[in-house]
Amino acid sequence: VNLLLLGRGEIRPGGVVELSDGRADHLQRVLKVAVGQDVRAGVIDGPIGTATVTAIAGATIILRATVDGDPPPRPRVDLLLAVPRPKVMRRLWAQLSAIGVGRILLTNAARVERNYFDTHVLTSESYRPLLVEGLQQARDTRLPLVSIHRQLKVLVEDELDELVPDASRLVADPSATLTVGEAVKADRSERVLLAVGPEGGWNAFEMELLAAHRFRAVGMGQRTLRTDTACVALLTLVHDAI
Amino acid sequence: VNLLLLGRGEIRPGGVVELSDGRADHLQRVLKVAVGQDVRAGVIDGPIGTATVTAIAGATIILRATVDGDPPPRPRVDLLLAVPRPKVMRRLWAQLSAIGVGRILLTNAARVERNYFDTHVLTSESYRPLLVEGLQQARDTRLPLVSIHRQLKVLVEDELDELVPDASRLVADPSATLTVGEAVKADRSERVLLAVGPEGGWNAFEMELLAAHRFRAVGMGQRTLRTDTACVALLTLVHDAI
Repeated sequence: VNLLLLGRGEIRPGGVVELSDGRADHLQRVLKVAVGQDVRAGVIDGPIGTATVTAIAGATIILRATVDGDPPPRPRVDLLLAVPRPKVMRRLWAQLSAIGVGRILLTNAARVERNYFDTHVLTSESYRPLLVEGLQQARDTRLPLVSIHRQLKVLVEDELDELVPDASRLVADPSATLTVGEAVKADRSERVLLAVGPEGGWNAFEMELLAAHRFRAVGMGQRTLRTDTACVALLTLVHDAI
Repeated sequence: VNLLLLGRGEIRPGGVVELSDGRADHLQRVLKVAVGQDVRAGVIDGPIGTATVTAIAGATIILRATVDGDPPPRPRVDLLLAVPRPKVMRRLWAQLSAIGVGRILLTNAARVERNYFDTHVLTSESYRPLLVEGLQQARDTRLPLVSIHRQLKVLVEDELDELVPDASRLVADPSATLTVGEAVKADRSERVLLAVGPEGGWNAFEMELLAAHRFRAVGMGQRTLRTDTACVALLTLVHDAI
């Protein structure tokens, strides 16, 4: 944890915060904080600053937070992702918020197994702590917006213009020769929306649908990567080029 | 699995291969192969080609392999990595071989916990199947060379020139402003050796040691990433630039 994240409602008058959950445990066992010590702190979807440890009583830590600094700018990349296997999705949440994405749009696709949608990995109780973990790693406070879409066609045709306006749209395609860097630089967009398909790829209909809605295919060389590795790699390239 | 990897010793005269382990299971349950079907196949550290399913008997699959094609070129990137937490290291092996590294040099450092070395995650029985998994994902046959170094100083001063000759040397440093792309392009090297430190960073002595041995510090923006995410991101940037 490089930034202690607090919920807005956890800060009492005078900036007093009382923690006795996993964060208190982490502060004591890993960061080994002492009374008087400052730690970097921030408010979820709010400002950053510091929190001073004012008391430690057993498993409870009392801090006084002073958070009035600007958080990092909202990441200029959004991800449209065909829901991967639950195990892969679970690994991905914290990495996505750490690398930095504004929105995560999870979608169905022909090669997404139907039962991937029924798992608790897609419930906010399950992914929110993982997103917060990634933000704490990366010293960011802005929680990515998450939405789940059962029909790719409806999402792309009817909802995407509103959800992600004015973004340059890219779709990862192992057969494409245009690189992420070339595509991003050619467009000079303020934002990029990156689409990553299922392990088995989008089918022909889906690729046509995406192409018809301004998604340009970008490649990343010959090697086929697992969805989580591919997402990290592609988002890194977008961040590097934007 | 996008490429079925075989050990050289598994191929009998006439190219006959008999599988009854996890690979046979994967071929049946996931790829749902039938007799007569071709699958992409390769020999570990050898050529690639195809294997034709000639018989399926219960959990055993017989194939005839024809492997005489060139494998992808050896990745031009090597990784010098301070041993991370076992859980992170376990997640990393397959991702490293999938992204493509020639060598993985695992080293001690001041901020590496001593017990990280005592785990089975660093034994070849444990990591070899994971490296093979990554190769099968990425359709490569070349197993990264792995070595473990208990003393960073000895490695850098006495062994590195021989282990990784003529490589451009980079060390990831959150405070650096030079980007990976700029550094790689400025050097026009044939190979890049990328050093990634412990979660807590290299200490001052280690940074001086690396700087004294031609490692240039490269950064990747303000966000601090977990070791596995950072390795994937940095290796992606090197591959993109080299």
